Amino acid sequence: MITIIMGSKSDIKIAEKATKILKEFDVKYTVNVASAHRTPALVEKIVKSSESSVFIAIAGLAAHLPGVVASMTTKPVIAVPVESKLDGLDALLSAVQMPPGIPVACVGIDRGENAAILALQMLSISNEKIAEKLAEYRETQKNKVYDDNSEIQKLL
Amino acid sequence: MITIIMGSKSDIKIAEKATKILKEFDVKYTVNVASAHRTPALVEKIVKSSESSVFIAIAGLAAHLPGVVASMTTKPVIAVPVESKLDGLDALLSAVQMPPGIPVACVGIDRGENAAILALQMLSISNEKIAEKLAEYRETQKNKVYDDNSEIQKLL
Amino acid sequence: MITIIMGSKSDIKIAEKATKILKEFDVKYTVNVASAHRTPALVEKIVKSSESSVFIAIAGLAAHLPGVVASMTTKPVIAVPVESKLDGLDALLSAVQMPPGIPVACVGIDRGENAAILALQMLSISNEKIAEKLAEYRETQKNKVYDDNSEIQKLL
Amino acid sequence: MITIIMGSKSDIKIAEKATKILKEFDVKYTVNVASAHRTPALVEKIVKSSESSVFIAIAGLAAHLPGVVASMTTKPVIAVPVESKLDGLDALLSAVQMPPGIPVACVGIDRGENAAILALQMLSISNEKIAEKLAEYRETQKNKVYDDNSEIQKLL
Amino acid sequence: MITIIMGSKSDIKIAEKATKILKEFDVKYTVNVASAHRTPALVEKIVKSSESSVFIAIAGLAAHLPGVVASMTTKPVIAVPVESKLDGLDALLSAVQMPPGIPVACVGIDRGENAAILALQMLSISNEKIAEKLAEYRETQKNKVYDDNSEIQKLL
Amino acid sequence: MITIIMGSKSDIKIAEKATKILKEFDVKYTVNVASAHRTPALVEKIVKSSESSVFIAIAGLAAHLPGVVASMTTKPVIAVPVESKLDGLDALLSAVQMPPGIPVACVGIDRGENAAILALQMLSISNEKIAEKLAEYRETQKNKVYDDNSEIQKLL
Amino acid sequence: MITIIMGSKSDIKIAEKATKILKEFDVKYTVNVASAHRTPALVEKIVKSSESSVFIAIAGLAAHLPGVVASMTTKPVIAVPVESKLDGLDALLSAVQMPPGIPVACVGIDRGENAAILALQMLSISNEKIAEKLAEYRETQKNKVYDDNSEIQKLL
Amino acid sequence: MITIIMGSKSDIKIAEKATKILKEFDVKYTVNVASAHRTPALVEKIVKSSESSVFIAIAGLAAHLPGVVASMTTKPVIAVPVESKLDGLDALLSAVQMPPGIPVACVGIDRGENAAILALQMLSISNEKIAEKLAEYRETQKNKVYDDNSEIQKLL
Repeated sequence: MITIIMGSKSDIKIAEKATKILKEFDVKYTVNVASAHRTPALVEKIVKSSESSVFIAIAGLAAHLPGVVASMTTKPVIAVPVESKLDGLDALLSAVQMPPGIPVACVGIDRGENAAILALQMLSISNEKIAEKLAEYRETQKNKVYDDNSEIQKLL
Repeated sequence: MITIIMGSKSDIKIAEKATKILKEFDVKYTVNVASAHRTPALVEKIVKSSESSVFIAIAGLAAHLPGVVASMTTKPVIAVPVESKLDGLDALLSAVQMPPGIPVACVGIDRGENAAILALQMLSISNEKIAEKLAEYRETQKNKVYDDNSEIQKLL
Repeated sequence: MITIIMGSKSDIKIAEKATKILKEFDVKYTVNVASAHRTPALVEKIVKSSESSVFIAIAGLAAHLPGVVASMTTKPVIAVPVESKLDGLDALLSAVQMPPGIPVACVGIDRGENAAILALQMLSISNEKIAEKLAEYRETQKNKVYDDNSEIQKLL
Repeated sequence: MITIIMGSKSDIKIAEKATKILKEFDVKYTVNVASAHRTPALVEKIVKSSESSVFIAIAGLAAHLPGVVASMTTKPVIAVPVESKLDGLDALLSAVQMPPGIPVACVGIDRGENAAILALQMLSISNEKIAEKLAEYRETQKNKVYDDNSEIQKLL
Repeated sequence: MITIIMGSKSDIKIAEKATKILKEFDVKYTVNVASAHRTPALVEKIVKSSESSVFIAIAGLAAHLPGVVASMTTKPVIAVPVESKLDGLDALLSAVQMPPGIPVACVGIDRGENAAILALQMLSISNEKIAEKLAEYRETQKNKVYDDNSEIQKLL
Repeated sequence: MITIIMGSKSDIKIAEKATKILKEFDVKYTVNVASAHRTPALVEKIVKSSESSVFIAIAGLAAHLPGVVASMTTKPVIAVPVESKLDGLDALLSAVQMPPGIPVACVGIDRGENAAILALQMLSISNEKIAEKLAEYRETQKNKVYDDNSEIQKLL
Repeated sequence: MITIIMGSKSDIKIAEKATKILKEFDVKYTVNVASAHRTPALVEKIVKSSESSVFIAIAGLAAHLPGVVASMTTKPVIAVPVESKLDGLDALLSAVQMPPGIPVACVGIDRGENAAILALQMLSISNEKIAEKLAEYRETQKNKVYDDNSEIQKLL
Repeated sequence: MITIIMGSKSDIKIAEKATKILKEFDVKYTVNVASAHRTPALVEKIVKSSESSVFIAIAGLAAHLPGVVASMTTKPVIAVPVESKLDGLDALLSAVQMPPGIPVACVGIDRGENAAILALQMLSISNEKIAEKLAEYRETQKNKVYDDNSEIQKLL
């Protein structure tokens, strides 16, 4: 089980990149909108009542949500910084530069799909079925590149 | 009354720049160490039990403390980003780029003294005595520059 | 009373974010266009003749206006850096990195609404009515997120 | 079991921050020096022969090591960007901005200790004992801040 | 012979800038899509089976492809960082900041044409015909500027 | 007399901002396209044969043109960095960060009009008529802001 | 006559780089300390009472001084951004990114000597003697490099 | 034969990294100090009279030297940006962001050794002996990492 929290409804496109992957892997998830600043109590309620193994926190600007979630659990928290101002550099630095003791696992700017894959990789440590599906998924990605390679060699 | 919170004991030099000013102005303050990530409950206790009119939050790296304090009060919150990595750019962007609805009042990197002066300016709106002292303080600053100017003209 | 000054007529959209909030709170304000560089005397006239408790200065590029206003008053000055070149990084650094003694209270890039809210928070120190309205406003913001959360859980 | 790989012997101080934590938690690890560019075969041998559940890759400059490790496994890979040039911004961006499909879990610049804690959080998903120790560790961190807070209130 | 590898099919526009030049110079090339992360074996196969004198690697985001190619050959490798996020700064730093011992020859962001010209310059060291064509090409560029100069003097 | 050189025909819009001002001031100028890299001889011919008092060099990317012009004359050279990649940061740093002994006078990104005004200010040192026109121009700018101020006060 | 104004006494080392050059050229100057924020009236008094042909303004952080001087005169104003925080990027952007109509002539970070040379270049437009000295100075610089070249060829 | 040109005698440490490698490979080189801005004629003399196959240009700040050399030859030009201000970002962007048609081959900041290796790789296209030595050198580098790996496994 994975809990996805986005800081604002406007982050929905990034969240959908994650849910698309999780659906493909048949892994359960919940999606929430909860702001670290406007609704800290809601964030706390979602995190503390959750039985999820992994959290994905999606936020732009001064992206405090991942760190705030990480302060409420010792489960792994994946951060997805979202591009809004300054090309997303503000969100990236706000998410990744956590102080000693409270890490978050930051993926690239707007990389919702990678947050989902990383969450699945974490689950795969103790879930052989997900591990197998990840290997298959990697294989599919690989084959897609081989196909692109064949195609491009005809084009250029 | 002003409440100063620093995210880590290592921020003490920046906090002292603020307390030095507040002592000069005879304005009461408390100083606390409370981490947004390691001790969110302590931050909440400090903020919610406080009767201070203004909060000053001092933090480096992914400086979430000012935003977290701002999420717990509608009193003004002053942010002091501290230089630790990336010349303090991470702390500056984490502090200043707050989302709509929950502002913080950000001063320059490592500018603890300016946080104190800004807090006093806020108090001065309804405190004539502080307003007068601020005018005197400005005058002293001004005179110091005039003195420097006289001195430099002899040197160069 | 709040005085809003924008450095150029082209900053009007950012100023309107601020006036929209102030109207909701029934707080009086004036809006001015005055350039720190083209019309320093106009800036001085506006600031020195003003009886406002708080100033909001909105400017892009080398955003000197907030600092120039701050040099003319000991009232709190809120800076809104505006995105024009370099994603607004020039305006942010020009606004926030003030020298010791003369702070401005900087909010995020293009965050006119937050400048207004911060100004109201400053007024609320001695104005119980505004303090109450701020608490209500925070509540409304909170409820909006709860609604978004309900909606999103149906969508994804 | 956790496999730590650093790109150069000069990264040893950052690796030690990680091994110190892992020793405290009594979790087995191996530490390797293997360069993505000078010894890709060694990296591959380490990764493919490993039975570790999590990899930690530590590298500076154009920090390709985490991504290269991630290309060889579907286990989670934690990246620690190291400050060497440009305040570590080159290493951070090289590590975190991975393309769709191959995530790494990036922690802050030079944050070896956080890489270890994040690895332990991943293991804790299916290891109750580590989960408990993480809760204790968080408690210790918390108490350290409370102690600092008591101390600072006497100092300032 | 020149081998062009792009990290993703989406880099095709940048690759075409290079192939256009190579066609004009009648120099043979192959174009491939091969991802350093999704298909490291394909990259290795292309590089190790190639008899090309120069490699051109085109990639965006955490642009590891040039460095990965350079780790597999002692032939010169030209890197073309591609703008995708952060204005291409991530790709530039990921490409250019290679560690001691394994250089890549980095050209400007999105500068596929310059990668081709640089490759031709390398070939020209031992190929008089290419050297002559490069001199002619430079002459043509020069004349184009002289024409632009004549034209502009009439316009402004 | 003022000599304007742009590094590429594509900089024409920035050059026109400058010529528009110079026409208003009835000051003679020539406009040239000459690339520091493609046509160094043309640059040298333009600079060395010129009797202009001031040079304006307009260029994007690695904007070497201003520095190259400055190496060929001891007359003042004004640099206009042009936005093309990286929001123009590359051009700005390439233009402004000149080594000791060979300055250029850099204006803001894309600020062709300011280059012209700065050139006129230089001429005004020994040309009373231009000095007077600059004072009038400043007055007009000032009045425009006063008008904007009147207008905005009705709007908001 | 040249007027040098530094924003703080701490900028003296940068100012001395300028005065050293001006002494060599036997050009009169005055040096002042005057803060745009702490002593706007002093800045105005210095600028408006000055008969100097060129102004040099030296400042760090949010370097408003050059722009403020430029707002008070139509004489050319040279800006020297000083490194203090953020490697001087804040001062550079605050100085160079002036709005349309009010240019400053920005030189590189900490380049006091270049500010002086640029000022002399401006004066040389109408002062043949300075023009000749600038040509000699350039010659001396050139010879210094030729000497360094001879020396280095023996060393390496 | 390789021609090394540094923009200033102060770049000697970076040049020595290159000459150390070239000596190991028994490849002839000349080292020169020649400034693109102070001695353009010297640069031109060195480049146009040279029979070298490859040029290495080393420069800091607004690093125009590589581009200026590239404008004078169609041989490959390797750029080494040197850290001086802004962590070397100014030199990197000034070197790498060359316009279409005139590439330079940029290596990492301060990477003199990589410039030499890249030059040797270019020569190796038509020089079997250098190609063999490069393979051996790569092998030595590889073995060094294997040794470091053995050593570190005992240490941590």
